[in-house]
Amino acid sequence: MTRITGARTLDVRAPTSVTLAGSDAVHQDPDYSGAYVFLATDGPHEGVGMTFTIGRGNDLCCAAIEALAPLVVGRDLEEIVGAGAVFWRRLTNDGQLRWLGPEKGVIHLATAALVNAVWDLWARIEQKPLWRLVCDLSPEQYVASVDFRYLTDVLDPDEALDMLRALAPTRAQRVATLERNGYPAYLTSAGWLGYPEEKVRDLCRSALADGWRCFKTKVGLDLAGDVRRCEVMREEIGDLPLMADANQVWDVDEAISRMRHLAPFELRWIEEPTSPDDILGHAAIRRAIAPVGVATGEHAANRVVFKQLLQAEAIDYCQIDACRLGGVNEVLAVLLLAAKFGVPVCPHAGGLGLCEYVQHLSVIDYVCVSGSLDNRTTEFADHLHEHFVNPAIVRDGRYVLPTASGYSVDLHAAAYKALVYPHGEVWAQR
Amino acid sequence: MTRITGARTLDVRAPTSVTLAGSDAVHQDPDYSGAYVFLATDGPHEGVGMTFTIGRGNDLCCAAIEALAPLVVGRDLEEIVGAGAVFWRRLTNDGQLRWLGPEKGVIHLATAALVNAVWDLWARIEQKPLWRLVCDLSPEQYVASVDFRYLTDVLDPDEALDMLRALAPTRAQRVATLERNGYPAYLTSAGWLGYPEEKVRDLCRSALADGWRCFKTKVGLDLAGDVRRCEVMREEIGDLPLMADANQVWDVDEAISRMRHLAPFELRWIEEPTSPDDILGHAAIRRAIAPVGVATGEHAANRVVFKQLLQAEAIDYCQIDACRLGGVNEVLAVLLLAAKFGVPVCPHAGGLGLCEYVQHLSVIDYVCVSGSLDNRTTEFADHLHEHFVNPAIVRDGRYVLPTASGYSVDLHAAAYKALVYPHGEVWAQR
Repeated sequence: MTRITGARTLDVRAPTSVTLAGSDAVHQDPDYSGAYVFLATDGPHEGVGMTFTIGRGNDLCCAAIEALAPLVVGRDLEEIVGAGAVFWRRLTNDGQLRWLGPEKGVIHLATAALVNAVWDLWARIEQKPLWRLVCDLSPEQYVASVDFRYLTDVLDPDEALDMLRALAPTRAQRVATLERNGYPAYLTSAGWLGYPEEKVRDLCRSALADGWRCFKTKVGLDLAGDVRRCEVMREEIGDLPLMADANQVWDVDEAISRMRHLAPFELRWIEEPTSPDDILGHAAIRRAIAPVGVATGEHAANRVVFKQLLQAEAIDYCQIDACRLGGVNEVLAVLLLAAKFGVPVCPHAGGLGLCEYVQHLSVIDYVCVSGSLDNRTTEFADHLHEHFVNPAIVRDGRYVLPTASGYSVDLHAAAYKALVYPHGEVWAQR
Repeated sequence: MTRITGARTLDVRAPTSVTLAGSDAVHQDPDYSGAYVFLATDGPHEGVGMTFTIGRGNDLCCAAIEALAPLVVGRDLEEIVGAGAVFWRRLTNDGQLRWLGPEKGVIHLATAALVNAVWDLWARIEQKPLWRLVCDLSPEQYVASVDFRYLTDVLDPDEALDMLRALAPTRAQRVATLERNGYPAYLTSAGWLGYPEEKVRDLCRSALADGWRCFKTKVGLDLAGDVRRCEVMREEIGDLPLMADANQVWDVDEAISRMRHLAPFELRWIEEPTSPDDILGHAAIRRAIAPVGVATGEHAANRVVFKQLLQAEAIDYCQIDACRLGGVNEVLAVLLLAAKFGVPVCPHAGGLGLCEYVQHLSVIDYVCVSGSLDNRTTEFADHLHEHFVNPAIVRDGRYVLPTASGYSVDLHAAAYKALVYPHGEVWAQR
């Protein structure tokens, strides 16, 4: 038995706005940040979780984690993980805190940090990477981790069980495939909107040399600027798959019109063409711009939004986020939904710690839920990995399966010391 | 010229959980609370705004107000109100804070407090109640206050102008009607879920004696409990209009099944039958349970969600909330959307300060936007009004038009002192 005895938060921020890494049409100066939580226990292990933000407001997430922590501290890990859906429902349905969402915004980002810390703790105790912990769960245990509330009109636990059982006997083969080949990835960090053209060209060339074969660029400036950015990318990467990300900058009709102008570049998908809340808008855009696909999800607040994006046939690619969703339990729900509708999951990453998180989630999706790699590719951005104890590793444009125990977002002690806000060395100097 | 020189917050909470006032199927023990903000100026007036919560987490809203305050402090009121949509866009699109929503949850609740404080300040300077300030705006000024981002696929500024101009010449007549008759209201405070049957009966009888002619009850317990609650209400109020509120407790299919059992009670609407994010779910429920109407909105995160609830024909009644939406500017947008789709606006109220807020919004809707009282009724709950300097007044089941300057949520000094959390007298004793 392991009892969770305390929860401590840390406001960690990297001054990425200095280099414009991560810049896009609506986030012009992000400082990649993590609201970290450390779960102390009465045993030898601690659990580390975090939620990603882009700077100001990271303190609000830390405060929200502290507000939720009494629902976790004092509990036995075995009790929590034995009935994961019950635990998750308790966190997201506190009779007073629920009002602040429900299941969205600051309180849901904070939920992710805590929930992910619990899964990290469990995986460390089991001495497995998170992906393997989940891949070793029985279909019944997987389903017991999912809160099906508000989903049963499209998916109930029985159908989910059937889906998982059908793939369970062949899990080991798929693990072996990934251990041999890695998981397919694409690169975002060549195309940040704040980067000048020559920098984009240089980054594309070195990425190609490193084995990258799938790229994404930011768009959402004026039309001429967007066309130029796509031209530059196409000149550098040739016919390789290219995606574009508008980061919510357009209205629905504007998105359709803009995408007509970008048709010559044969984009695989346009990402976040409009408001992340606009399910029907995404569906209208998708109908209008085929065969270019529509991708969204990094700002989709919860599983109910994903349910509708799938019901409305609004997306070709389902971009789960490890922190926007309320942690592993809710991700497991969305993986099931996407598989039911036959839509490939291509997780959102980049940021601080998101690559470290989602590398596990893509493995779980392939091994346990979808059983397919078709049209799947997981985002990678090459920033800040040096701060991680067990950083995500890509080789020849593919994620290498993590082997260390846990959920991979713990930082080196020196990194916490340098990046803690506002008194860490990096910030005190500024 | 009036310059905003500072912003101070106050965490105000009332211990309503003691009496179970406000209790429902998912909020079993609310402590009605307000995250208050006071805008200081270089003139004789201050602006007072607040956002409503139900207890824990009210401090997070105060902290979020403080995070947003630098976007307001130092600005001239005239500059802000001369281009309201620009100001509102700035508040909701800070390059870093936006990540925490966008436009939802804690950060959007905080936006409402600040935006409402600015409108309060403006109305105080003009020495008008908020409703009259807006009713004295030209159609062009109204439209300049609305951010049409993400709305233009269904409503653009030109069409909005046409709608407002058509009603502008007859505004004075409708004001006169309301000054004579008040605005129709319904009563919620007889039917809180935590109240025993005899208390419900007593409250219904005294409400009828006070002139109330429209009632709402909470449902969402077991089926027998819901049926019994509706029976009791019907026995007491006879054939008068009766609504029920499930507070998000059901899944989609469950809501449909439950409502079939409640059909004999001829409810006017079922409110929040499922997840507030489930636009398509509300639409499915509405198709299945007609002629009972579907109402929702108190947890609809922003105008984009309302746009879709209307597009999907998911609601019969549009329940705007003065704090869930990002303040007056966004409410003005949703009033236009509802009018365009011909759906009556019936604001959510109760809580702390919500009745004081929405009494103004219903007047604006009737006088400037919808021009109709058909099927309109504004919620009232009879709690905590004694703490307000200018409380909402109802007479014969109708809101009396407010006459004092401002947006009506300022409390008596003694109330702030008693209710401030955690050191006010009310809390220090506990």
